[in-house]
Amino acid sequence: MSEYIEHDKNGISVGLVEKKFFTFAEPPHEMILESAEKLGPITIAYETYGRLDPDKSNVILILHALSGDSHVAGYYTRDDQKPGWWDIMVGPGKGIDTNKYFVICSNILGSCMGTTGPSSINPKTNKPYGLDFPVVTIGDMVKAQKALLDHLGIKKILSAIGGSIGGMQVLEWCVRYPEMVVSAIPLATTTRHSALAIAFHEVARQAIMADPNWNNGDYYSGPKPNLGLAVARMIGHITYLSDESMRHKFGRRLQNKSDFSFNFDADFQVESYLRYQGAKFVERFDANSFLYITKASDYFDLENQHGSGSTVKAFSKTRAKFLVVSFTSDWLYPTYQSKAMVQAMKKNGLDVSFCEIEAEWGHDAFLLPNDRLTKLMKGFLARVYRQIQR
Amino acid sequence: MSEYIEHDKNGISVGLVEKKFFTFAEPPHEMILESAEKLGPITIAYETYGRLDPDKSNVILILHALSGDSHVAGYYTRDDQKPGWWDIMVGPGKGIDTNKYFVICSNILGSCMGTTGPSSINPKTNKPYGLDFPVVTIGDMVKAQKALLDHLGIKKILSAIGGSIGGMQVLEWCVRYPEMVVSAIPLATTTRHSALAIAFHEVARQAIMADPNWNNGDYYSGPKPNLGLAVARMIGHITYLSDESMRHKFGRRLQNKSDFSFNFDADFQVESYLRYQGAKFVERFDANSFLYITKASDYFDLENQHGSGSTVKAFSKTRAKFLVVSFTSDWLYPTYQSKAMVQAMKKNGLDVSFCEIEAEWGHDAFLLPNDRLTKLMKGFLARVYRQIQR
Repeated sequence: MSEYIEHDKNGISVGLVEKKFFTFAEPPHEMILESAEKLGPITIAYETYGRLDPDKSNVILILHALSGDSHVAGYYTRDDQKPGWWDIMVGPGKGIDTNKYFVICSNILGSCMGTTGPSSINPKTNKPYGLDFPVVTIGDMVKAQKALLDHLGIKKILSAIGGSIGGMQVLEWCVRYPEMVVSAIPLATTTRHSALAIAFHEVARQAIMADPNWNNGDYYSGPKPNLGLAVARMIGHITYLSDESMRHKFGRRLQNKSDFSFNFDADFQVESYLRYQGAKFVERFDANSFLYITKASDYFDLENQHGSGSTVKAFSKTRAKFLVVSFTSDWLYPTYQSKAMVQAMKKNGLDVSFCEIEAEWGHDAFLLPNDRLTKLMKGFLARVYRQIQR
Repeated sequence: MSEYIEHDKNGISVGLVEKKFFTFAEPPHEMILESAEKLGPITIAYETYGRLDPDKSNVILILHALSGDSHVAGYYTRDDQKPGWWDIMVGPGKGIDTNKYFVICSNILGSCMGTTGPSSINPKTNKPYGLDFPVVTIGDMVKAQKALLDHLGIKKILSAIGGSIGGMQVLEWCVRYPEMVVSAIPLATTTRHSALAIAFHEVARQAIMADPNWNNGDYYSGPKPNLGLAVARMIGHITYLSDESMRHKFGRRLQNKSDFSFNFDADFQVESYLRYQGAKFVERFDANSFLYITKASDYFDLENQHGSGSTVKAFSKTRAKFLVVSFTSDWLYPTYQSKAMVQAMKKNGLDVSFCEIEAEWGHDAFLLPNDRLTKLMKGFLARVYRQIQR
């Protein structure tokens, strides 16, 4: 079923995959956003792997995080050296087994990887939107994903799965479209963005907006705010790791030198790593998209948006079975936040499994190879799939 | 002894105080830095409070952190509304009792509050040094402080006290001039800067260096890199707080609005707080000084610089009695780092008291009112003072 890729990195992959597009909300049928603004047309970039069961009961919806895209697994061409961002988890026989399940992942609204966002052409001006793009929410992203699923004729999601901002979308799906979601796996996430997480996002945004090339969001015909975006990404990378993982990965080791430079070059490996991550990111990501997606996650507050201030109430219509996973060293969305969400789910009598995985890799842990996580997810998905087939 | 200030904020203060200056290392007798570069002349700004005992046995040396200065306590004028940065701790009858002790604090080398730093005039060019200022270390800062104490005729320090980068200077003093230091109180600090702490400093430096007004450090005759420095300060402020304190102080409360703005204004109080802190900082601090002082602390590694890789060996000549204090929610210099330092001290048979104080305020806790800390320090100082008077 999947084509053989010679340099396949993570065991057998789903093989060659293709980015597809779906456009909807053509004026005058624009989508109404949470801000009450209208947006349309909207194009959604998405990919699918595996085969849809005749009764469409094997759909797994993967929701990606801040800098992700629809390219979860496989390769675009035979020469493509880099598989999708979760290729270790998604593929034949893997944690999310594409021999069994039909996987869908779409690029989120506001991003820059094929789905409509601030770098897309505004049909009213024939120029990129820039800051004329309306501020979108996690709810708006999910509403757009729902339009895609309607288009594909999908009425049930066997499991909605995602980490971080992807996990927020998972929770939003369960609350917004409870009749559609059979099960859900929110990983390393939260029901409401904390002050600490908002603070990191705000400083990253300020770094972008302080770059004169940002030019109030209107930079698509000139130099880009690459220095600001690189600093923003560096801030992000610190929050994705942990004190422990940085100690093990870098410690105080120097980068290609035996003594201090006594200048402002990168002396330490950790400095060199961050500079590299920043420089690499600006090649592939749009600074305005960074602003919009961080803002959407800062606004995320399930208990206020769906529960009049109560997390228990927010989940009151939800019917999904849950596997909630947190990681010991994740200080961006610490375990106590997952536990609070689990408690609210349980108070609604929901079927919830919770696991805090011992991992030193901080928030990033959900993206890294982890046997425990793979087994947990595989077992959970097999159980819910069995249950609906009875 | 101390003059009455009508609007005195923290109980009775030391009253009116004066910034003094001491200049040394006049060419050709420049100070030799750890980098092997020469620097001179060097001016040190300092303040003293209290009265020196006839036998000069009551000297307390306070060492300040990144953005601090010599102005620890009291007021400069009768109209001055803002006391020194540790006025809650230093004054008549306070934790560091100026009725008993003679307190000295000097602005650190590389800073911009009166002591020679990158914004000082380079006598060779008659223009501010900028990046021609040599990179200095914590050791260089301490060496300059030693010159000041020699000038004042001080041969014994009853106690060297400081938090954060001030704590690094405390440790450096104990190791570099063991015969001079009777006791020491390193607060919320570390013997070697961790990869996480280096990472935050590096991103802050990158934010400054990404500001085109920084102009490779040569901005003293033009616009200053205020936007970059503000972002750097915002990053700092996040690391000084904690998840817990931010939750209590800000939570998800909005700033002067009842609903989201759906734009990139500051929606949340935490955003507004950070923007304010950034904007306020650029009025009083030099961006290059921020680069130099963060670099000095990144280089700090007592075990490599003084112990050939062993923390135990680094303290082998030290004779000081120690009170080591960490704070539960300090994730910049977490308790495990203080414990490692205490263990190394104890292996040298040193008299060490260690206390981890329960505090939600993160790294900043050492600067905030805390009865426990005040009592601990007061008791410790009284004991060491009694012991040397026998």
